[in-house]
Amino acid sequence: VDKGKDVPLAMPITVAITVGDELLLGDTVDSNAARIGRAFAELGAPVVRLETVGDEAAAIRAAVARALGDGDLIVVTGGLGPTPDDLTREAVADLLGRPLRSDPDLVAVLRTRFRAGSGALPERNLRQAMVPKGARVLPNARGTAPGLAIEREGRWVVLLQGVPSELEGMLAGPVRDLVREIFGARLRPPVHFFVRTTGIAESRLAERVESLLPDERGPVSLAYLPSVRGVDLRFTVAGEVGTDEARSWLERMDRALDDISPYRYPDEDLAATVADSLERSGRSLAVAESCTGGLLAKRLTDRAGASQWFCGGVVAYSDYSKTESLGVAPGLLSRAGAVSEEVARSMAIGVARVLQADAGVAITGIAGPGGGTSDKPVGTVCYAVVVGDRTTAKTKVFVGDREAVRERSAQAALHLLYRTLPE
Amino acid sequence: VDKGKDVPLAMPITVAITVGDELLLGDTVDSNAARIGRAFAELGAPVVRLETVGDEAAAIRAAVARALGDGDLIVVTGGLGPTPDDLTREAVADLLGRPLRSDPDLVAVLRTRFRAGSGALPERNLRQAMVPKGARVLPNARGTAPGLAIEREGRWVVLLQGVPSELEGMLAGPVRDLVREIFGARLRPPVHFFVRTTGIAESRLAERVESLLPDERGPVSLAYLPSVRGVDLRFTVAGEVGTDEARSWLERMDRALDDISPYRYPDEDLAATVADSLERSGRSLAVAESCTGGLLAKRLTDRAGASQWFCGGVVAYSDYSKTESLGVAPGLLSRAGAVSEEVARSMAIGVARVLQADAGVAITGIAGPGGGTSDKPVGTVCYAVVVGDRTTAKTKVFVGDREAVRERSAQAALHLLYRTLPE
Repeated sequence: VDKGKDVPLAMPITVAITVGDELLLGDTVDSNAARIGRAFAELGAPVVRLETVGDEAAAIRAAVARALGDGDLIVVTGGLGPTPDDLTREAVADLLGRPLRSDPDLVAVLRTRFRAGSGALPERNLRQAMVPKGARVLPNARGTAPGLAIEREGRWVVLLQGVPSELEGMLAGPVRDLVREIFGARLRPPVHFFVRTTGIAESRLAERVESLLPDERGPVSLAYLPSVRGVDLRFTVAGEVGTDEARSWLERMDRALDDISPYRYPDEDLAATVADSLERSGRSLAVAESCTGGLLAKRLTDRAGASQWFCGGVVAYSDYSKTESLGVAPGLLSRAGAVSEEVARSMAIGVARVLQADAGVAITGIAGPGGGTSDKPVGTVCYAVVVGDRTTAKTKVFVGDREAVRERSAQAALHLLYRTLPE
Repeated sequence: VDKGKDVPLAMPITVAITVGDELLLGDTVDSNAARIGRAFAELGAPVVRLETVGDEAAAIRAAVARALGDGDLIVVTGGLGPTPDDLTREAVADLLGRPLRSDPDLVAVLRTRFRAGSGALPERNLRQAMVPKGARVLPNARGTAPGLAIEREGRWVVLLQGVPSELEGMLAGPVRDLVREIFGARLRPPVHFFVRTTGIAESRLAERVESLLPDERGPVSLAYLPSVRGVDLRFTVAGEVGTDEARSWLERMDRALDDISPYRYPDEDLAATVADSLERSGRSLAVAESCTGGLLAKRLTDRAGASQWFCGGVVAYSDYSKTESLGVAPGLLSRAGAVSEEVARSMAIGVARVLQADAGVAITGIAGPGGGTSDKPVGTVCYAVVVGDRTTAKTKVFVGDREAVRERSAQAALHLLYRTLPE
């Protein structure tokens, strides 16, 4: 060891273990593994390995034993419930040689909870008050079983709930605090910066981005995160770099991307961006949908408080409903076709008029798999926006299956609306 | 060994390994693990352990080496792509001591694919034609990289794609065939029987079911699978039991559950059941939604060909749109309140009339988090169905967050529609 130098402390290594037959059988997608992955990456102690085992004591013991071989922190989720197939507490106590004892405080908490709810405390729930000798109890505000943390020779085994909402509460509170207390200066939380884009294909976006970014990117790494709604860019500076330096690098990246601003939007969800814009300007909105069949209205009304600016919508699935509910002229429908920019404009104008909204947006297209022609193949979608007396319309041919075409159409219409709404 | 007895061959043991930094960081939920879990459970060679490792050759080698210790079949997914962080092929070839060779047939296939698409074959894609010595090539109809299967001392390592659609194609075809060929009589596919229910809480359903089922259930096991749309019962008979015996046990369970038929529906998705019923009877449908904001219309139009029976819908988010688009009397709104069975009935009648549909369904309620009162708390939802001149309406108070209330409301309205529609 070179005594003249500061030896940097190594970043702690996390190994995750998820427990449950339903995960191995594929009945449930293991979203808890992703929750743990995200939480520990953000804390600066990333997960380097994950194991999933069934509801079997021997399998749980073997997985924890393996994890003690390479992890500083072993996070186990699932198997803390009150039923006979919940075996994690007992298996880990057994492996670590820590006898379980009933914790009178936890019994009292359980009794209070059950009195407030359904009445008497079932015998089997008393298992949830058992604590391995020397373990720390991590309070669970959202459920009956607490989390448990057990130290052995500087390594920690943390047992957490499998119910997603309870796990989330634990990760955001008691677990975060514990990890910071234990590992302190060894944690290396990364700094991220997101650029959300839509309306440009990943390969074309990558070309543009690579040509715009400076060659010298220092500690910055870049990931492209494509989805059916667009492509997010995630810039990351690893935790080894100081926060101020990281921020200044990320701001440099942000400024370099000015030229792609027509494709950018500020929030995680473009519907939120549109909603904020409408709320700020005091404008109201109505939507008319054909191929998206209610998806656009659903996305807008996913937000609580949408009734402040959302007047309503019309799902005009037939020609009759387009003429009857939206006032599209029958002649226009037969001349231009139901999937045309003219009809999209007329639908947007019609729905704004009928529902007395300041702005209207409309989508008409062919989601497939049937209904395509050589002129208008499956995926052809026309959409339009009206604000005041100004209309804008576009046509795109989207790739993908029915669901993908519908999602892309709704996102494209929101994008046009966002770009059209005056600030 | 007792020579006088048939010694049953043991069921093969599958260990799964998924590869990708994005899985450990929690950027992506590992749906491939569930795909593999389902496929191998159904084949009769269930996954007993899953490991997830990052894009690092040493980690992949270590995981496969561990899996060779307990698995007959090791399934690795991810890391077969053309980019530098795709390392699975090389890591496994290295571990097993099987040098990689370029397969001329695969190179030819790659060249053909690229000529048909974007043109020249990029140098880096040539890696996807590399095959470990002695490996079987599993054709991939949906992408450029084939699957690979390598035998060592009676154990098989199978390398598969990480792109979900490609993986699904492989599991349903070449992998299934390979596993049947290798393990034949050792496979024990289970037999399932599903009972789908909605409109009854899990605990109450469990009480009813337990009291109805015979005490003697032989080889049948039962799992309750709750979701926001209802509770599915999955009855399973393990593969050790003969198919005829399994079927007869499952039919006995089915008959015993006659008494809960008001809550049962036949398809995986209740929207499909409703759609089939409408298609069969030649009836058309229109929907009017307030709190669900388009969700019900979206669910119905998720189905291709919905335009045959779906006339359209109205998202009536404001009192104005309820009166203007649906003809709800302003006096009724002020007297009964927007969230009332009377208004729901009037909305259903109105939308069927406006869109000239044979049947109408309507939902009005308080999805929250705001808007509740002591009379009508958050979660209060009224829904109604009209078929011909007969209307039916119900009120429920649903628990859960905004999204859960909206999902439960749409499902409840579909259930009422299903129960109301004459055969």
